[in-house]
Amino acid sequence: MLDILNNHRSVRKYTNQKIDNTLLKELLEAAGRASTTGNMQLYSIVATTNDEIKKQLSPCHFNQPAITQAPVVLTFCADFNRFEKWCHQRNAEPGYDNFQSFFTAAIDALLAAQNFCIAAESKGLGICYFGTTTYLTQQIIDILHLPKKVVPITTVTVGYADGEAVRVDRLPLEAVVHENIYQDYSAETIDKLYAVKESLPENLKFIAENNKETLAQIFTDIRYTKENNERFSEMFWQAIKTQGF
Amino acid sequence: MLDILNNHRSVRKYTNQKIDNTLLKELLEAAGRASTTGNMQLYSIVATTNDEIKKQLSPCHFNQPAITQAPVVLTFCADFNRFEKWCHQRNAEPGYDNFQSFFTAAIDALLAAQNFCIAAESKGLGICYFGTTTYLTQQIIDILHLPKKVVPITTVTVGYADGEAVRVDRLPLEAVVHENIYQDYSAETIDKLYAVKESLPENLKFIAENNKETLAQIFTDIRYTKENNERFSEMFWQAIKTQGF
Repeated sequence: MLDILNNHRSVRKYTNQKIDNTLLKELLEAAGRASTTGNMQLYSIVATTNDEIKKQLSPCHFNQPAITQAPVVLTFCADFNRFEKWCHQRNAEPGYDNFQSFFTAAIDALLAAQNFCIAAESKGLGICYFGTTTYLTQQIIDILHLPKKVVPITTVTVGYADGEAVRVDRLPLEAVVHENIYQDYSAETIDKLYAVKESLPENLKFIAENNKETLAQIFTDIRYTKENNERFSEMFWQAIKTQGF
Repeated sequence: MLDILNNHRSVRKYTNQKIDNTLLKELLEAAGRASTTGNMQLYSIVATTNDEIKKQLSPCHFNQPAITQAPVVLTFCADFNRFEKWCHQRNAEPGYDNFQSFFTAAIDALLAAQNFCIAAESKGLGICYFGTTTYLTQQIIDILHLPKKVVPITTVTVGYADGEAVRVDRLPLEAVVHENIYQDYSAETIDKLYAVKESLPENLKFIAENNKETLAQIFTDIRYTKENNERFSEMFWQAIKTQGF
């Protein structure tokens, strides 16, 4: 079981083998067993298999090929719509039009997503997360017809891997885990923790190809720039507000 | 493997058996294999075993006994501190003082948390999530000495179950899963989807004990009230801002 977790790799290329419907349901059932706040199940999963809709979603994810190639695209959404409808039908006045409620529902969606991914990997499928879901959020809302109080949080493609995906490096455990309270990092510790990552041939190649001095600059200047982060912050925030939180 | 996911239950009572340190490390390693945005690993895990610090954390979680009783309390945090320190030491200018970056890091923290929980359950341990982490967030920040750019997102207690925990009900799968696009719920569908939940003896008892008319009112009037949600929204938002996002 730990093997399944430890062997995780992001699968971005899929064969054209479909996922059996019974298997997919079984995986979605397992996703639904993840912890959820107060057992309110404040999330929905939109499972897109239709080629036309996948094509519409593709630009929302910067046309990464996995979106149209994978047999199933799952959009995990924070969802207070279903719960509020129930409240209104039961003479109960919901007070969930706020940030705390949005965030609670986002947590529910993410725990279910990770359960799904592990379930899928345990059955020999490959998955990939798309962080782009919180960039062009409003477009995804429109394409998937998400009503008020529903916000897409993350997207997962799933299917059978075409070829062997790479298991990427991680920082040593002590980089991430703190005993009892947070131990802040000295400059020396940072150097030590990032040393292996910085020495990997693929990362050195990446730096050279992009004419950068350091690996960190790849992130700040190319992959996750201040300008984009600020633009996408505003767009995501606006979408959350528009959806009624 | 799906059995482990399907058998999940929240364990709130623990024996006084400690968790072997090698096992705990193995579980934390498995947590660290969860997907993370751009392989930036934008999270930290504070693993608290010290009784004094657990006692300090307890009121932040409304004195729920599991916090002091469980051998280990894990606080999963969105963390851009480590990454930014690295950037600064590598002549790279980070642009992560915004909502999008905070949310990205929160996603990383939550996927790692769920991986940890499944790893723990696969080894016979019991876990429980505490949504209270986003309520009195500033107090947790102070107790755990979280620096700027670190925000606690969720808390998990882990240990050996004392007694049999209950596997709770879930809505039928079709309540949560939508094919291709979102299919909004009719009043009849809502009635149907919530019928089993509303008929459960424990829920009927809960309604009677609290002098309420419906189960939904238990949530809106007692468990997750508008007043509290709004108060905790403001406090959580303030803590996120104070931490530099």
